[in-house]
Amino acid sequence: MIIDFQTDPSRYRHWKIEVDGQTATLWMDVDENGGLVEGYELKLNSYDLGVDIELNDAVQRLRFEHPEVKVVLLRSAKDRVFCAGANIRMLAGSSHAHKVNFCKFTNETRNAMEGAGAASGQHYICVVNGTAAGGGYELALAADHIVLVDDGSASVSLPEVPLLAVLPGTGGLTRVTDKRKVRRDRADVFCTIEEGIKGQRAADWRLVDDVVPNSKLDALLGERCAEFAAKSDRPSDQGGISFSPLSREIGEAHVRYTHVSVELERSERVATISIIGPEHGAPSSAEDAHAQGDEFWPLALARELDDAILHLRSNEPEVALIQIKTQGDPQMVLAYDRFMASHSGNWLIREITAYWTRVLKRVDLTARSLVALIEPGSCFAGTLAELVFATDRSYMLVGQFDGDNRAEASLLLGEANFGLHPMSNGISRLETRFLGEPEAFEQAKGSIGSALDAEEADELGLITFAYDDIDWEDEVRLFIEERASFSPDGLTGMEANLRFAGPETMETKIFGRLTAWQNWIFQRPNAVGPDGALRRYGSGQRPDYDFTRV
Amino acid sequence: MIIDFQTDPSRYRHWKIEVDGQTATLWMDVDENGGLVEGYELKLNSYDLGVDIELNDAVQRLRFEHPEVKVVLLRSAKDRVFCAGANIRMLAGSSHAHKVNFCKFTNETRNAMEGAGAASGQHYICVVNGTAAGGGYELALAADHIVLVDDGSASVSLPEVPLLAVLPGTGGLTRVTDKRKVRRDRADVFCTIEEGIKGQRAADWRLVDDVVPNSKLDALLGERCAEFAAKSDRPSDQGGISFSPLSREIGEAHVRYTHVSVELERSERVATISIIGPEHGAPSSAEDAHAQGDEFWPLALARELDDAILHLRSNEPEVALIQIKTQGDPQMVLAYDRFMASHSGNWLIREITAYWTRVLKRVDLTARSLVALIEPGSCFAGTLAELVFATDRSYMLVGQFDGDNRAEASLLLGEANFGLHPMSNGISRLETRFLGEPEAFEQAKGSIGSALDAEEADELGLITFAYDDIDWEDEVRLFIEERASFSPDGLTGMEANLRFAGPETMETKIFGRLTAWQNWIFQRPNAVGPDGALRRYGSGQRPDYDFTRV
Repeated sequence: MIIDFQTDPSRYRHWKIEVDGQTATLWMDVDENGGLVEGYELKLNSYDLGVDIELNDAVQRLRFEHPEVKVVLLRSAKDRVFCAGANIRMLAGSSHAHKVNFCKFTNETRNAMEGAGAASGQHYICVVNGTAAGGGYELALAADHIVLVDDGSASVSLPEVPLLAVLPGTGGLTRVTDKRKVRRDRADVFCTIEEGIKGQRAADWRLVDDVVPNSKLDALLGERCAEFAAKSDRPSDQGGISFSPLSREIGEAHVRYTHVSVELERSERVATISIIGPEHGAPSSAEDAHAQGDEFWPLALARELDDAILHLRSNEPEVALIQIKTQGDPQMVLAYDRFMASHSGNWLIREITAYWTRVLKRVDLTARSLVALIEPGSCFAGTLAELVFATDRSYMLVGQFDGDNRAEASLLLGEANFGLHPMSNGISRLETRFLGEPEAFEQAKGSIGSALDAEEADELGLITFAYDDIDWEDEVRLFIEERASFSPDGLTGMEANLRFAGPETMETKIFGRLTAWQNWIFQRPNAVGPDGALRRYGSGQRPDYDFTRV
Repeated sequence: MIIDFQTDPSRYRHWKIEVDGQTATLWMDVDENGGLVEGYELKLNSYDLGVDIELNDAVQRLRFEHPEVKVVLLRSAKDRVFCAGANIRMLAGSSHAHKVNFCKFTNETRNAMEGAGAASGQHYICVVNGTAAGGGYELALAADHIVLVDDGSASVSLPEVPLLAVLPGTGGLTRVTDKRKVRRDRADVFCTIEEGIKGQRAADWRLVDDVVPNSKLDALLGERCAEFAAKSDRPSDQGGISFSPLSREIGEAHVRYTHVSVELERSERVATISIIGPEHGAPSSAEDAHAQGDEFWPLALARELDDAILHLRSNEPEVALIQIKTQGDPQMVLAYDRFMASHSGNWLIREITAYWTRVLKRVDLTARSLVALIEPGSCFAGTLAELVFATDRSYMLVGQFDGDNRAEASLLLGEANFGLHPMSNGISRLETRFLGEPEAFEQAKGSIGSALDAEEADELGLITFAYDDIDWEDEVRLFIEERASFSPDGLTGMEANLRFAGPETMETKIFGRLTAWQNWIFQRPNAVGPDGALRRYGSGQRPDYDFTRV
């Protein structure tokens, strides 16, 4: 079965979007029988990857299709339960790789919800009615504001450790300590109380922002919506653009889109992502870009690249290495970048830029070795050059291939490489790259707009290796063969440590510390073994632990 | 077999300390047949926990016994090999818990080497002759300066990923990216080249600081020693103090020292550490403290507490929870703190303070649940109050126990609680605690020197729970029983995430991200399974990997 990350509201089984002026309500109403695979029922608004794929789609569409929406109310359509978190039988029955990919995607989606408020003024307010347990509370934690409806039974909880022997791994621990800054001993207490915390105490401990009786809920929400809307600079008078289905063909050994293609060499454990540069010049105005809608090149490409990465993560588990290539006119890529920069005040352009930031982070966080191959005819310029700096290493051809008359390979920096798209660590890829060489960073800045050949790019420290056509094939082949022969786990751990030098943020803590500990626990018999807590949950039998503390 | 962390130079099998004026040389000369347990030979200066226990002892003694030593040359006494890293057969044959404890201790020792330069002007210069591979290069990375002797064969390498399918987990990845700030793609290349990097390229990539031929080595070392010595403010004219063996009795269910005792209730999975406050007043002068030598209360206590923690970590694997209690006069503890503060310019007092910082970090990093019980007659004041803030939660008695006439429990803050002992995250425990409540932090500061009773301490947010004697016993018992019933892995992961809110540093990256990924890998069949790389290393058989990327 192929896991498909594309959907649209007409196909949602678990969510409903209602738009009313500047406020939208995103209703969670999980279909018990709508699990992505057989073997579990999604009771009590518990979720699996399928539910989250719809959520991701909804979060995206609300941003692009509804510029007028300034506040999103995240609510449960079920009585007395907000969300019971990730479905436990699903977790218990999933492979290690699926659990890890599932957690990564859900984390990215929650970051996107947070980012909607921070980057484009679309703020989430979560209304917790009934229980918000585990992943349910983690979903609430991703909102800018949490309202607890005090009906005597509503509560928030992170019961993973006591009940399931796993962590609240969708950002829960990190957001409790670093976003909501709950005192650590209270956090310790909270994370060990199965039934969670209710009422005023939840507010006193800063686990929620408002506690309100049902009778006063509507009035309070009206007030909060107005407050958050007042902080938003989203336009009230402009129409959104709609996302049509991606043009995509999935074959035996390829996935082809309009601007992106993925070719698979499974026996080599290699995937090649090829990106085609713009075929037309940049539009003349923001209105023109808007009129192009989801066919506007930067947006269309972001959507396709995003889908390609997600597809590879979930559906090609044995691909060890992703090669990234481009083809096109680098000056035209820079022209698009300049167009984007000169219209950065436009809501749509801002949305697309923020989307690129997310897609590039998705690349950074992909647990596959990444290499950029900069060859003649390529267009690694500006935003596309970010892909070079996102890879683990890059190879650039000196001169031309024998009998190939395409333009010599060049690399072009643009303003987009200097802070427009911060990594999870909060700084740009070039700043991260040159942490130890601030002078190289300044030199790189000085080269903005110049077409750098391989030797110049090498001299500036922008690429890893420059080879001429005599050595190119052997060097690249040897690298790929060797890389694909290494332990995939060793590579995952190594890359997770080498990619994010410098400052740490809540995001890097989530994907570094929290995720790594969770992955460890997902290997431990106390959680996943036949007598472990995940497998025994709901059986009436207590888990049987090895009590060695590690 | 009990693992004993105490040793002294007369018993060293693997190291030799030579002191010559302001320079000491720490020679590594591992005895192949001196492994801590049977089953492996420590060839090529490879190490096991026993080698590192001696290193830790040497690092400590150099600081306390040799105030005149400003530079420590870390060298191999073997020809053509600096150090081959952690012994692979030892790793392959060790339990998961042993591997994890081993890595944690080696990391702490490397941090102590780095700290010697930063906190007390005793700088390490590492001389790499021959190969420094894996943990061998990680040892070099902990020095303030690395000299590579360019004899044509000397090299530095981190071959863990390609050879062993594990990470360079003793800080290697983190120090390459964040201390030496090696460009990430070069770090990627470096960490995948089995044979490592030699000569000038090692310097160009900032993997080492100097590359020098053998003929010029002595001259260069003379120069570098003089430079680092010039930066040091250690006194040249004062005698050190010597560390005599700890007075320690290890019984069936206890370990007793002079100021510390550990009582074990193994069936409950609980250990109680009891600390006795000072029995005499603070000395009248730094000379007086010096004359007391290793019997000076703050130093004696630090050594005992350090040993007790290390003992529990390695020898009591099933202890889930450590209770910390104190007994004594809190005003006298504060008097010692004031004495330390008023003599902070004295080298010995500075050393002892820095040692306390390390011991408290050792507590923070202990993978056991920690609770402070603040009872009548206790002396949680100043430095000892730091232990309260290091625990996961604290319980304080309101009033007195029935029929007990000891002084009512009190908690006293001192200057020592406000920045003297930063956690690994670089800020104080109270600042971490009150990240979300800066006003509470200020209020706490205002209470310095006041004996706070349980209600006041609770009001100020300094403790987790205050109970009177009617509830005390049940509440504490229920907590302990419950805690001890949880999955130890879940608790380890949870505590590692909740204890370190706020900023991140190289240390938190090492103990958070790097360690967590390494622990994950230490569970993965690709590394530790019967066909995994660690088990097959040296067998002539290639490891058999599951190539699923996770």
